[in-house]
Amino acid sequence: MNSKPKIVILGAGYGGLMTASQLTKELGYNEADITLVNKHEYHYQTTWLHEPAAGTMHHDRARMPIDYILDLKKVNFVQDSVVEIKREDKKVILENGEVDYDYLVVALGSEAETFGVPGVHEHAFSKWTVNGVREVKEHIEYQFAQYHNREEGRDELLTFVVAGAGFTGIEFVGELTERVPELCKEFDIPREKVKMYVIEAAPTALPGFDPELVEYAMDLLESRGVEFKIDCPIKEVIEDGVILNNGEEIKSETVVWATGVRGNSVIEKSGFEAMRGRIKVESDLRAPGHDDIFIVGDCALIINEEINRPYPPTAQIALQQAGTCASNIKALVKGGELKAFTPDIKGTVASLGGKEAIGVVGKKKLFGTSASMMKKVIDNRSLYLLGGMSLVVKKGKKPF
Amino acid sequence: MNSKPKIVILGAGYGGLMTASQLTKELGYNEADITLVNKHEYHYQTTWLHEPAAGTMHHDRARMPIDYILDLKKVNFVQDSVVEIKREDKKVILENGEVDYDYLVVALGSEAETFGVPGVHEHAFSKWTVNGVREVKEHIEYQFAQYHNREEGRDELLTFVVAGAGFTGIEFVGELTERVPELCKEFDIPREKVKMYVIEAAPTALPGFDPELVEYAMDLLESRGVEFKIDCPIKEVIEDGVILNNGEEIKSETVVWATGVRGNSVIEKSGFEAMRGRIKVESDLRAPGHDDIFIVGDCALIINEEINRPYPPTAQIALQQAGTCASNIKALVKGGELKAFTPDIKGTVASLGGKEAIGVVGKKKLFGTSASMMKKVIDNRSLYLLGGMSLVVKKGKKPF
Repeated sequence: MNSKPKIVILGAGYGGLMTASQLTKELGYNEADITLVNKHEYHYQTTWLHEPAAGTMHHDRARMPIDYILDLKKVNFVQDSVVEIKREDKKVILENGEVDYDYLVVALGSEAETFGVPGVHEHAFSKWTVNGVREVKEHIEYQFAQYHNREEGRDELLTFVVAGAGFTGIEFVGELTERVPELCKEFDIPREKVKMYVIEAAPTALPGFDPELVEYAMDLLESRGVEFKIDCPIKEVIEDGVILNNGEEIKSETVVWATGVRGNSVIEKSGFEAMRGRIKVESDLRAPGHDDIFIVGDCALIINEEINRPYPPTAQIALQQAGTCASNIKALVKGGELKAFTPDIKGTVASLGGKEAIGVVGKKKLFGTSASMMKKVIDNRSLYLLGGMSLVVKKGKKPF
Repeated sequence: MNSKPKIVILGAGYGGLMTASQLTKELGYNEADITLVNKHEYHYQTTWLHEPAAGTMHHDRARMPIDYILDLKKVNFVQDSVVEIKREDKKVILENGEVDYDYLVVALGSEAETFGVPGVHEHAFSKWTVNGVREVKEHIEYQFAQYHNREEGRDELLTFVVAGAGFTGIEFVGELTERVPELCKEFDIPREKVKMYVIEAAPTALPGFDPELVEYAMDLLESRGVEFKIDCPIKEVIEDGVILNNGEEIKSETVVWATGVRGNSVIEKSGFEAMRGRIKVESDLRAPGHDDIFIVGDCALIINEEINRPYPPTAQIALQQAGTCASNIKALVKGGELKAFTPDIKGTVASLGGKEAIGVVGKKKLFGTSASMMKKVIDNRSLYLLGGMSLVVKKGKKPF
């Protein structure tokens, strides 16, 4: 039976993993060959990574082996990196091989958007992956450990710059404010020696959030020692800090780049028409002009008609897209109507470290501990969708 | 009563702290003013530091606040660094002040001996202090954390060079072999990627030890992946490794310098006649030509007549000297005979990590677990001498 259609899914993030999981439920063993390609043998919760980055959570809590979620008797798992999609030949070139497809799901993750600022890749931490964030965590600890042994340039060791006051930047600095007192104690350093900056080019922190929530977040973080520089673009990242457009220079050995993300560079390399690595998908989530290629997650661009701007790429949307994508592939394989994808944004909550958060759920604004509890409920919900209650029990967060 | 003699002790290592402790027992409150000067508000167990350096013990276990050991109602504690001893003026210049003395006890610690090899201070880790070793530990972890994020020069990150196969070098690399498998697991790195070198200029590892013990130690460490280069002097430490006299270059971002120690540079700065920072003391432990200055610990040079070589500076000798020194100061203050110091070397045990060690106690050679147990007994004994049974309970090691 070589006539079984080959379905290949690239990426085991929220979108890819959920698509694979759904497909194993919707298609029988004899109806399709399902292959999942991923760089690592584990999935990680991107939305949790600010915690291991700051060292407030162990990185193992934010990742899980693929087979926690997928039955690898039903899915062929290939651990490899994607180099290029050869659309004409219906195959994907991997670093160590290649794989043919009849249907392809591109669920590759995002990359840091530098906005052309020089020095980001060379001198800033910008990889929001398990490997990336545990380097950030160890780097921060190493700064503290060096302090008492250095005569000159000690202040730079304890100055931390977060570029970008968006979701990721704010969540990371929130955790950092929780971690710094612990590190000061561990390394015998007075708390006032540590400086934390958040630098944002836009005229507000947390653009898109309600101003009342933004104010709450900034006041709270300032009370924990964070200094904001808003409406203040960065001109360049240099070896020992950042130079701002206004000419000011901040000396720092730790610049964390969190100004936002773009789609995956494999998209452009493979010749798709794209905006910053994201493909404006059809309503059924296929790439325009391609009956056989679906795009879900960070590489899929969908316009929110209400405000005429793209939906930000979130775990929530990726998980929802996966459902539609799997259902549409089933329709192609077994016959049936393809469905249009409609996002259902239930809310957004940003954690601020400890028991603090801000957010909107439905039309309701949340602050403080109630927002923090909601954040944990949301985190657990993504686990539930991926792996059911047993995954929540294994990896979930206690809301109280 | 300004006529009370002022006794000043410089350094709260084994020798200084023990001298202070003994003096509070031998002299009444009205008989002397005792001042202890130390850079930190804590004492640390130098002989334990190979463990926190490798990360197999938390650094707090190897240190204790001064007042765990001394009653600070009986001793005036000054937290400051010694700059110079002004012998003519009978005073000591500190970084932030000065202090007069009638009797001075110089118990300052050792410094790394570079033997003139260029680059040691710039590119190697050579400070065997709490601050120094926790930097080593964090540096090592940071190397592992960087590995997966680097395309080039990855091997250098996981190559560790220990310069010196003496006591400290061997004890450190022993702990490192225990720690490496944990770090490999933590950072998803195959064990075989890690290289550990011990480089020794002398024709043997552990000079002064019985050849049978040396062979046991080397065989064991080699079985755990250590590569020895014996009779192989280092020509230079460079930014990314070491260059050997034979022209070979080993690329490494972590060079730990453990080729031996010299006395404190304050000794030379203060104009004492000294050999590599150590003063050849009189039999009563006073500096030649100085009735009012005692030297104990790492800065005291005493010849072992049996082999016509100096005793190595150890915790064991420092603690014994402190007893003689305190007794002799008491004699000067209250009258009586000064005693000559006679070392009583009970034995030497070097740990090799985990439950392994080698050593000699009395005339008996010890290997493996019995040596490892003895090592812990010795470690506990130094705690007992310093702070009695209560300190052993707080900080001691379980021998089994």
